[in-house]
Amino acid sequence: MSKFSVTFFPENISVEVEEGVSIKQAAALAGIEIKSTCGEVGTCGRCAVKVQGGKYKDLGGNISSRLRNSGHVLACRTVVEGDLTVEIPAESRLDEHQVLVGHSQEKGILVEKELDLLEGYQFNPICRTVYLELPPPTITENASDLTRLYAELRKHVDYPDIRIPLAVLQNLAVTLREADWKVSVTMACFNGSAQIVSIEAGDTRESQYAVAVDIGTTTVVAYLVKLSTGEIMGSAGTYNKQARFGDDVISRIIYVNEPNGLEQLHKAVIGTVNELIDKLTKEHGISPSSIHAVMSAGNSIMAHLFLGLTPKYIRLDPYIPTAADLPPVTAKELGLMINPEGWVFSFSALASYVGGDIVSGVLCTRMSESDEMVLFIDIGTNGEIVLGNRDFLVTCACSAGPAFEGGGITHGMRAMKGAIERLVIDPETYEVSVQTVGNGKPVGICGSGLIDCIAKLRDAGLIDRTGQFQQVSTPRYRMNEEGPEFVLVWEKDSGIDKDIVITEADIKNLIRSKGAVYAGIRSLLQMVSMDLEVIDKILIAGGFGNYLNLSDAIKIGLLPDVPEEKYEFVGNTSVKGAQLALLSREAYKDAIEIGRKMTYIELSVGNTFMDEFVSALFLPHTDLTLFPSVPV
Amino acid sequence: MSKFSVTFFPENISVEVEEGVSIKQAAALAGIEIKSTCGEVGTCGRCAVKVQGGKYKDLGGNISSRLRNSGHVLACRTVVEGDLTVEIPAESRLDEHQVLVGHSQEKGILVEKELDLLEGYQFNPICRTVYLELPPPTITENASDLTRLYAELRKHVDYPDIRIPLAVLQNLAVTLREADWKVSVTMACFNGSAQIVSIEAGDTRESQYAVAVDIGTTTVVAYLVKLSTGEIMGSAGTYNKQARFGDDVISRIIYVNEPNGLEQLHKAVIGTVNELIDKLTKEHGISPSSIHAVMSAGNSIMAHLFLGLTPKYIRLDPYIPTAADLPPVTAKELGLMINPEGWVFSFSALASYVGGDIVSGVLCTRMSESDEMVLFIDIGTNGEIVLGNRDFLVTCACSAGPAFEGGGITHGMRAMKGAIERLVIDPETYEVSVQTVGNGKPVGICGSGLIDCIAKLRDAGLIDRTGQFQQVSTPRYRMNEEGPEFVLVWEKDSGIDKDIVITEADIKNLIRSKGAVYAGIRSLLQMVSMDLEVIDKILIAGGFGNYLNLSDAIKIGLLPDVPEEKYEFVGNTSVKGAQLALLSREAYKDAIEIGRKMTYIELSVGNTFMDEFVSALFLPHTDLTLFPSVPV
Repeated sequence: MSKFSVTFFPENISVEVEEGVSIKQAAALAGIEIKSTCGEVGTCGRCAVKVQGGKYKDLGGNISSRLRNSGHVLACRTVVEGDLTVEIPAESRLDEHQVLVGHSQEKGILVEKELDLLEGYQFNPICRTVYLELPPPTITENASDLTRLYAELRKHVDYPDIRIPLAVLQNLAVTLREADWKVSVTMACFNGSAQIVSIEAGDTRESQYAVAVDIGTTTVVAYLVKLSTGEIMGSAGTYNKQARFGDDVISRIIYVNEPNGLEQLHKAVIGTVNELIDKLTKEHGISPSSIHAVMSAGNSIMAHLFLGLTPKYIRLDPYIPTAADLPPVTAKELGLMINPEGWVFSFSALASYVGGDIVSGVLCTRMSESDEMVLFIDIGTNGEIVLGNRDFLVTCACSAGPAFEGGGITHGMRAMKGAIERLVIDPETYEVSVQTVGNGKPVGICGSGLIDCIAKLRDAGLIDRTGQFQQVSTPRYRMNEEGPEFVLVWEKDSGIDKDIVITEADIKNLIRSKGAVYAGIRSLLQMVSMDLEVIDKILIAGGFGNYLNLSDAIKIGLLPDVPEEKYEFVGNTSVKGAQLALLSREAYKDAIEIGRKMTYIELSVGNTFMDEFVSALFLPHTDLTLFPSVPV
Repeated sequence: MSKFSVTFFPENISVEVEEGVSIKQAAALAGIEIKSTCGEVGTCGRCAVKVQGGKYKDLGGNISSRLRNSGHVLACRTVVEGDLTVEIPAESRLDEHQVLVGHSQEKGILVEKELDLLEGYQFNPICRTVYLELPPPTITENASDLTRLYAELRKHVDYPDIRIPLAVLQNLAVTLREADWKVSVTMACFNGSAQIVSIEAGDTRESQYAVAVDIGTTTVVAYLVKLSTGEIMGSAGTYNKQARFGDDVISRIIYVNEPNGLEQLHKAVIGTVNELIDKLTKEHGISPSSIHAVMSAGNSIMAHLFLGLTPKYIRLDPYIPTAADLPPVTAKELGLMINPEGWVFSFSALASYVGGDIVSGVLCTRMSESDEMVLFIDIGTNGEIVLGNRDFLVTCACSAGPAFEGGGITHGMRAMKGAIERLVIDPETYEVSVQTVGNGKPVGICGSGLIDCIAKLRDAGLIDRTGQFQQVSTPRYRMNEEGPEFVLVWEKDSGIDKDIVITEADIKNLIRSKGAVYAGIRSLLQMVSMDLEVIDKILIAGGFGNYLNLSDAIKIGLLPDVPEEKYEFVGNTSVKGAQLALLSREAYKDAIEIGRKMTYIELSVGNTFMDEFVSALFLPHTDLTLFPSVPV
C-alpha cells in the first residue's frame, strides 16, 4: 500500500501514513489530538479541519456549508489518498489544560466544605510499611531467609496469610544481606492477606506513597498521599485521553465495537493516570516504585475501561456490568507505572450507570451514617443522584450529557484558559461583559458560563421559557443557516478570529441537560414517595461544582428551589473517598458494603422519568410552583 | 570491536562473534553444547576442541599434553582473535539423548516396584474444573457477570475466597455470552483460596491437564497428567540444559557469580521444562493453555534456580536457602509455557542440600507413615538419604558427585545410546564383553557400567582394594602420561575412533563417590545411634536406579551388605510424589508438613562423616566385617 506524507499546520509536523487513513488518525500520529464527541462517525462536526492542498477522499458527514465552502472537511471522515497539507483550527483541538483541583473561594459561589475525612475511622492505611531488624542466621539458627522474615513480620501484622510475589522473593537473599538484616517491608493488607509489595534496605517508612484517583469521563484527578501520615503531598488533574473517542460514556461504549476499540480506550485511560503519576513523582522527587497502591473511583463505564473490561453489555438490555465488586489487581497486570507489585483497587461498579465515584462520595460524606435525609448530586458528564440516610440509600443516574462541560455546544469548551466562566448581559443595550478563566482572550464558554448565559439571556428577555429567542433589535442577534444565534464576543475581542456565539440549538441542548438532572432528582423522590421538603441537606459534588453559581443554577431549573442554606458544596468527593479508603482499611471495607447496599433505580424503566424530563424542558420548569423564588 | 567468523565441524556451521568471546560461547551460539564440569574455569578438561586454523588466544588450563600436542585447546579458556575453524570431537559434546523413563524389567536388576500412589488419599486434584450452567440475566435478575458466576461457583467449591485474574475477568463478559452461559471454570485450590485459572465455553472437564516434573541436576523428567482421572497421558525426559554450566550443584552455584549467571541458569532450566511440555503437548495434541498446573520437585539448588532465586548463600556458612517453603507462583511470572494464569508449585527446599525431590520421595513411599524402620537412598548427582518411620525422619546429603552419571570419568557418559551399561571381564584372558544401551557401538560408559566395571576389575584381580591397578600381562593394561589405564573397548570396535579406557584416576573418582554415599548412610545411622540391623527396608530411588546391579553395588561398597530382600527399587520417586500432589490436595499439604518435620543433619559439621568417608575409600571398605557377603 502506498505511503503518503501529511503535514499539519501551524505546527508544520509531517507524518507518513498509508492510503485510507483518516486525517484524525494521522493527526493523532503527529501527536495532535482533535476533538470528537460522536465517536468518529461524522455526526458531531467537532473535528473540522482545513485542507490546504493534496489528494483526499471526503466520506461526508455533518459539517455546515459555510465551513465546507471554505475548504473545511471532517477529520474523522476524510481519508488520505496522496500527500496532504492540513490546517487544524484552534477550536477543533483538544488542548492541554489545567483541570482545576482543590478549593474555590470566589464570592457568590458555593464554597467547598472541608471534610474531616478520617472522622470515625482509625488511621490504618491499606498499605503499611514495617521496619524489621532480623536476627542474622547462624549455623544453629539456620531457618531460611523467608522463614526468618515471616517470623518477625508476624509480630507486626494480624494476618496469618502473608504472600510474597516472585520478583520480591528473587531479590530477598541479596537485599537482606546488603541491608545487614535491617529492612522495611511494605504490604498491602486486604481480603485477609498481607501481600508484600516491596522489601527495602534500612528504615524507609517515611518515604512510601499511594495515589487516590478520580477517573472522570472528562477529567482525571489524582492525589499523592504519604502512607505514614495520610497527608496529601500534591494533586494533579488532566483530561481523560479517552475524550478523543467521544465525549460521553455512550460514545465510548460504542467505540468499543471498533477494531481494538476496547484496547485503545483502556490504554488511553491508563496513559492518563500514568501521566498524572509521572507528574506527581517528578514534582515531589520520589521514585514511582515508592508508590505501593492506587485507589481508583470512577463511574461503572470508566471503572470497566480502566481495568480493560468491556462495558458493552452495560448498554444492552438487560444492562449487565462484567463485575460490580471489582477485584484488586497488580500494577504490572494493569500497566500502571508505580511499583510493579503494587496493588490497584477500584471502588464497586454498583450498577450500569452508577459506580465507584458515587460509592466514594457516599463514603466520604458519611451520608450512609447520617440521621438527616440527604440528597447527593454529583454532576459530571453523567448526573448521578443518591437519596438517603443511615436507613436506606437509593440512587439513579441520568445522562446529563457533556453540555455543562462544553460538549455539543457550538463554542462550548472545558474550564481552561480563555473559557468564559461568568457573564453579564445589559438588559437595555444587550451588551455583554465576560469574565474568563485565567483572564485569557475569550476562546469559548465553559459550564458555569453556560449556566450564567442562559440565566442572563432569560433575565434580559432575550429567550422565552422554552429557550426560544425573542426578536430584539441588536446586531448581536442574527440568523445563521441553522437558526438564530446571539453573539457573546465579537471576533475583534475573541481569541479565535471569529465571533463567539450561543445558538438556539445550544440553548436547547443545555435545557435538555439541566432537565435531565432535575428530572432525575424528581423521579427518584417520587419513586420513594418523598417530597423535597423532607430533605435536610443537598450535597453538590463534582469538578463542575467548582464553578457553580447556585442562584443561577436554581433560576434555570437545574437544581431544586430550596433555601440556599440546605446546599453544601463538597467538591470532588470521588477522589476524596478514594483517599479515605487508602488511609483506612475499615473505610475500604465500608466502601464495598456501601456498593452492595445501595439500591439502584433504573430511570429508563417506566414513564416517570420521561414525564418529568418533558416537564423540565422549560425555564425553570412547566410547573412554576416548584420554583417559587424564581421571577417569571 | 571487530567481528570474526567461527566455523564448527563436522557441522560446518558458522557464527559471527566479537573478539574475546570463548570458543565455548561461540559454539553455544551455533547451537552446539560442549561439556563442562568445572563451571568454565579450565579445570575439568572436558571441553577440549581442535582448532584447525585461525587466530586465537589460549588462556591455559588443565589439558593433557597429548591433546595439546595434537592441536587441542580448552573451549572455555580459548578466546577468538580472528576467523577460526574448530572441530568438536564427539566426546566433548553434550549430545541429545533419551533419558530413560519408566520401568525396567531386566533380570538381575532390582525391578521397579509399582507404587499405589493414591493409597490412603482421596482423588481431589489441586486443580479442578467445574461445569456451570448459569441462569442468564434479566432486567430484574441483573447481578453482574462476576456475581452471577461466583454465586453458582460457590455451590461447587468449599472456599469462600475465590480469586479471578485480571486477564480472565477481561474476557468474562464475552465468554459467558458466546457460551450461552454454559462454561467450564478451572481453579487451582490452595492456601484456602480457589484461584480461577480459566473459563471456557461448554463442558471441557475432560480436556484439562497438569504436569508433574522432577528437576534433577542432570536430567529432567515430566509426566503429563489428566486432571479428571489422574491418569498419566505420557512422560518425557531430557538433559537439564544447565549442564553446560557445570555438572554438579556446586559448579552451578559458582556459576551464579558470573555476569547474568543466575539468569542464564534460571532460563536454562525453564527452557528445559518448556521443551518437555512442548514435546508432551505436541505428542498428545493438546493446547499448552489446557495445562493448568505444574508440580515440581528438585533438590534445593534446582528448586532455587527454577524459581530464579539465588542459591549462593546455600554454599556459604551458615548455609541458608532463600526459602524453604516455596510459594506457588503463576506460569506467566515464571515464563512456563502453559496457561499463563496456571499455577506452579514447588516442593519445599527443606535444607541446604536436601530438597523437594526427597520430600517427594518420602511422600510417595509413605515412609512418614510407616511402622517399619525405613532407609531411603536417592542417588543422583547428589546422594540424599532419609532414615525414619512414622515417629521421626532424619535426613542428610552427601556430594556423591557426577561420577555415577559419567561426570569426571575419562569415558564416562550418561545413559544414552552406545553407553556401556554392563560388562564382563574374563579372569583368565582379561578379555572384555560389553552390553550397550540400545545395542549401539560403544562410545563411553554410564553409571551402571561403571559399577560393573569396578566390581569386575576387582573380581579379576586387576585392581586391589584401594583401586590401584595390579601389573598383569595384557595389552589392555598400559600406562598413559598420567598413570595406568585399562582398555575396555579397542578403537576398531568403538564408535569414537579411539580406545575406550578406564584409568586409575577414574577408579579413584568412583571410589570417592561410592564412599561418600556409604559414609552418608553410616554417619546418619551413627548420629541417631542406630545399627543397620534395625532397618527393615531400604528403598533405592533415582534415575540411576534404572540400571542398578544390586550385588555389584554391594560388592564395591556403595550399598550396605544386607539381605537383598530388604531392598526395594522405587524408581524416580521425585516425579511420582509430584504427580501424587497434583492428584490430592491432602498429599500436597502433607508434602509441606513433611518438609517441615524432617530433621536435617549437616554432615560437614564434626568429624564423623570425614572419618567414615576415609574408611569407605576401599573396596568394599576398610572394615570388612561390614561386608560379610563380599569375598575378599
